[in-house]
Amino acid sequence: MWKEYVEKVRESKPLIHNITNYVTVNDCANILLASGASPIMADAKEEVEDITSICDGLNLNIGTLNSNTIESMILAGKESNRLKHPVVLDPVGAGASKLRTTTAGTLMQEIAVDVIRGNISEIKALALGTNTVQGVDAAVTDEVTKDNLQDAIRFIQEFANTTNTIVAVTGAIDIVADKDKAYVIYNGHSMMSDVTGTGCMLSAVITAYLAANSDSKLEATATAVIGMGICGEMAHERLAALDGNASYRSYIMDRMYHLDGETLRKKAKYEIY
Amino acid sequence: MWKEYVEKVRESKPLIHNITNYVTVNDCANILLASGASPIMADAKEEVEDITSICDGLNLNIGTLNSNTIESMILAGKESNRLKHPVVLDPVGAGASKLRTTTAGTLMQEIAVDVIRGNISEIKALALGTNTVQGVDAAVTDEVTKDNLQDAIRFIQEFANTTNTIVAVTGAIDIVADKDKAYVIYNGHSMMSDVTGTGCMLSAVITAYLAANSDSKLEATATAVIGMGICGEMAHERLAALDGNASYRSYIMDRMYHLDGETLRKKAKYEIY
Amino acid sequence: MWKEYVEKVRESKPLIHNITNYVTVNDCANILLASGASPIMADAKEEVEDITSICDGLNLNIGTLNSNTIESMILAGKESNRLKHPVVLDPVGAGASKLRTTTAGTLMQEIAVDVIRGNISEIKALALGTNTVQGVDAAVTDEVTKDNLQDAIRFIQEFANTTNTIVAVTGAIDIVADKDKAYVIYNGHSMMSDVTGTGCMLSAVITAYLAANSDSKLEATATAVIGMGICGEMAHERLAALDGNASYRSYIMDRMYHLDGETLRKKAKYEIY
Repeated sequence: MWKEYVEKVRESKPLIHNITNYVTVNDCANILLASGASPIMADAKEEVEDITSICDGLNLNIGTLNSNTIESMILAGKESNRLKHPVVLDPVGAGASKLRTTTAGTLMQEIAVDVIRGNISEIKALALGTNTVQGVDAAVTDEVTKDNLQDAIRFIQEFANTTNTIVAVTGAIDIVADKDKAYVIYNGHSMMSDVTGTGCMLSAVITAYLAANSDSKLEATATAVIGMGICGEMAHERLAALDGNASYRSYIMDRMYHLDGETLRKKAKYEIY
Repeated sequence: MWKEYVEKVRESKPLIHNITNYVTVNDCANILLASGASPIMADAKEEVEDITSICDGLNLNIGTLNSNTIESMILAGKESNRLKHPVVLDPVGAGASKLRTTTAGTLMQEIAVDVIRGNISEIKALALGTNTVQGVDAAVTDEVTKDNLQDAIRFIQEFANTTNTIVAVTGAIDIVADKDKAYVIYNGHSMMSDVTGTGCMLSAVITAYLAANSDSKLEATATAVIGMGICGEMAHERLAALDGNASYRSYIMDRMYHLDGETLRKKAKYEIY
Repeated sequence: MWKEYVEKVRESKPLIHNITNYVTVNDCANILLASGASPIMADAKEEVEDITSICDGLNLNIGTLNSNTIESMILAGKESNRLKHPVVLDPVGAGASKLRTTTAGTLMQEIAVDVIRGNISEIKALALGTNTVQGVDAAVTDEVTKDNLQDAIRFIQEFANTTNTIVAVTGAIDIVADKDKAYVIYNGHSMMSDVTGTGCMLSAVITAYLAANSDSKLEATATAVIGMGICGEMAHERLAALDGNASYRSYIMDRMYHLDGETLRKKAKYEIY
């Protein structure tokens, strides 16, 4: 099945509206192009509804929030809901400041979000109101491991149930779950955390996969997560002795450019719970 | 003649003021350096006149507009006009939202613009007030082809005449025209549309070419368009099996870094109408 | 001694808060990761104190100022001072506009800054209130050379004394000095000025080195400057015939990713005054 989801993106070329941070925005645009989608970035409240209305999906990322973009996110989100287009929320740094935690909460109240993608600390911050985020990386104490996997799945599915969303938690082990079903994904490479924005890029790609495969949102999300992980793995194999995180960034994107359904089918490593 | 225009940029090292979007701004800065110019980015209304006054050209790009930058663009544009420095307008996404179409119109009214560079849909949106833009890429139905070339040239020259500008329309076939003369350019590679910001980068480079060759604005603009196209072609020849759009982006810029007048003269593919 | 400073960053993985320009912000994030630190970017006044309080150092860069970020810089700076975390100021383009010169002055008055890093023109603009900056590169007439080295050192140490800071002036020859001691550094490569943001990246890396080596701020700063210079040199050796400034940018970052204390110790070229 994964195969079709990948190819559907390249066939339908969904146009994705991104209201996102200025740190990784260029990478988000380029990885959307690499995946077969088209990006448009627009955050002025005067135009976000217009822009969303010509797009096929909306990616909201709170990586560098300000009061203007919050209002724009709500406007765009409501319009996207009205049009029944998919909405992804990436609560970057939730837990690291009251503004981020509160804003993520506000967005979830005001907008029907299809998928929330973050690291386990960010999701915990949203779920528990705790303040456990170390920067934008999952705090080590909050890592999902084989030992706490069952607990993690239960926690994530509870959160998915409460919020009526699909939750994608990424880290050494990724979990993509709704209230009924959980994909535990073992693709990816630890060096991906040495490249800024791999999470942001994944959220953008998830939006494209949802837009192109709107009948199977959970599977489309899992496919995007698996795909990004495979890109991280294959890009890592390509690294030469002198290459570091900058070349790795390019190789990940290059790999997404060539990702096809057959490769994804062969290399996917996951379990269903 | 093209040869001299390229070399003039490297000799005179014009300083280019960019008020541009936060998506591709880094690429615009680096490609200006690659072309032999120097970039400065500044968009606060408190300083844009100061900045413009020490620069040699102004590049206005509406890719991620907000109300502050619109005011800054007008201030900088008027100062640049007063100093008789070239002004380039890149109406990114005109037609995609009322804000963008209106703003592009306002800028053209308030500022004497030397060159407008966009895809055919953006230029049509400006010219006809139609709403035919699919994201930031030219809608396929609006592509310039061999079949509609004469119509396209006529349309573009009319628009150039009405607005008293040089119009550079880029796509599979590029047209650079003022009311009297049109260059039809066949350089470039279709994969350039898989890299975000190749249009923005070109607008920045055009500004540098205008600043360094202010006596021959039409030819300077055509040279920049040809040059960018050649960079796209030669960068494409460099692609290895694993390379995708990320490596391609770097190769395009690398090629601009090495572009010389002789290469441009040899590889230029154009007709004059 | 240099060796330990490098390794300390990788061991302690300091989290660095950056309020910086949107041109080179992605490069700053990735080079912090390359150096062993973690980046967080946040500039909304509602959250900068929260963010700074969970970080280990603060990097303030005025490359694309606006009125909101100035207020945020002051709030974050005061909080960082209260926590005795290091603060670095990069006065990008000071001298190029009144806003930049004034803002840099305001920041220095309101915040106890540990290190100011800029080119000689920017530092002169701050020191003398002169307006001698050509864009963001040191005006050629203001270059530090072997001939004016003694004058430059004296000038920089006076400025360091007056402002009670460490001053890092980078260019063909780098000088890192406090009022008592000056390191004159000969590492680096002239092609680094063909990549936008190498100065911004260095300021980010200095912040990481200060955060990890807070007992030896002058030496930590000098080490970061030497390290960046060595990365520029080794990256240049890696350039192939077709590589230009885009590949060079990646190679510099890749090299930082692999930089170890032993390499730095061996390749450091400096004198103490």
